Amino acid sequence: MAEYSISELNKVKRGPKRANYDIDTINSILDDSFLCHVGYVYKGQAIVIPTAYARKGDVIYIHGSLKNRMMLSLLDAGVASVSVTHLDGLVLARSAFHHSANYRSVSIFGSVRKIDDSDEKMEALAYILNHMVPGHWDNVRHPNTKEFNATLVLEIKINTASAKIRAEGVNDEQEDHDLPIWAGVVPIKQVAYDAISDTNLPLDVKVPEAVKLYVSKNKSI
Amino acid sequence: MAEYSISELNKVKRGPKRANYDIDTINSILDDSFLCHVGYVYKGQAIVIPTAYARKGDVIYIHGSLKNRMMLSLLDAGVASVSVTHLDGLVLARSAFHHSANYRSVSIFGSVRKIDDSDEKMEALAYILNHMVPGHWDNVRHPNTKEFNATLVLEIKINTASAKIRAEGVNDEQEDHDLPIWAGVVPIKQVAYDAISDTNLPLDVKVPEAVKLYVSKNKSI
Repeated sequence: MAEYSISELNKVKRGPKRANYDIDTINSILDDSFLCHVGYVYKGQAIVIPTAYARKGDVIYIHGSLKNRMMLSLLDAGVASVSVTHLDGLVLARSAFHHSANYRSVSIFGSVRKIDDSDEKMEALAYILNHMVPGHWDNVRHPNTKEFNATLVLEIKINTASAKIRAEGVNDEQEDHDLPIWAGVVPIKQVAYDAISDTNLPLDVKVPEAVKLYVSKNKSI
Repeated sequence: MAEYSISELNKVKRGPKRANYDIDTINSILDDSFLCHVGYVYKGQAIVIPTAYARKGDVIYIHGSLKNRMMLSLLDAGVASVSVTHLDGLVLARSAFHHSANYRSVSIFGSVRKIDDSDEKMEALAYILNHMVPGHWDNVRHPNTKEFNATLVLEIKINTASAKIRAEGVNDEQEDHDLPIWAGVVPIKQVAYDAISDTNLPLDVKVPEAVKLYVSKNKSI
């Protein structure tokens, strides 16, 4: 079981029994989402911005416009912190104190590099789109020179990372078990609904299989 | 229409037409979620951590253990950046370049204060629980002295904030409209499912109305 080494940066201090440094576990949490929150330092203060991403091996790709302050600040700093969180449920305990959530979260600490090579950059853009809807890159018009040049793509190489996972029921104090108070878990899930086609489509253009598959894999259970 | 004043910190630089500084709009986005991503600076690097929150007026409450590094770092810095994001849909365009997401996000910049007053602290804890499931504080056992003293509650007073909202269809280039390529929007929503009661409950303890109401308001459409 390959793990990220534990350092001051990625060590999970609170709730260490929920901590996980296993690379496969971390990758599976990263692959289940395409929205991350990136942190960067601007004039001494941390700023947090949501953005799309994709993973390839031990790197994360993000993209934005050439003038994006977050992207430029990350490039300037050379390091990035990225958080990915899935909310899986509300844990409603008998006591206020033991209320919690079921979740899977990952914190990444990585080094930032601008992707200059054209082939590598185009591949990264394909990864970002395919990470959202697998296989959909092959269905769309690829970037022309103007669009390609207007896009900044950064690679964040994962130097260290950690996951925190809570996936269980209520943990109340033993002496609270006989109280006439309800406790339980409310499952939470992010779901997709049937695609709404653009109104300007030529008549014979149908929803691609990749999009249908995405919806069917993410629809409400 | 009351707005946050625009400063270097909260000014939306990319996609300014999606920017919104209206306080009611920002508050409604904050009230629709209870999971935020907090940024703080640790040894010169930004770190991003997901946590629960509640809003009361122009303040955000977060809580954690007395030794929580994020909480202590925020207190030490005196300032916090908080991001709240709702993903509402995938915008799948004809061109890779015009792919986007429908979302509502808020960035807050605030000053951090530890809540020492007992009444104020208990009220903040009630706000955090009720922000998750409205009214549920009245159903549970409140913190005892030991639990209360083991909890650190911080107030983040919103000094400035901004929202970004995208809530529309595909924006492709005009010349791409006749291409035989599908485009459309896949709606995305975070939904709740029926509560799963703890197995150790006394027989006559039923799911509270507050929990049922939460589920019914957040179930899949």
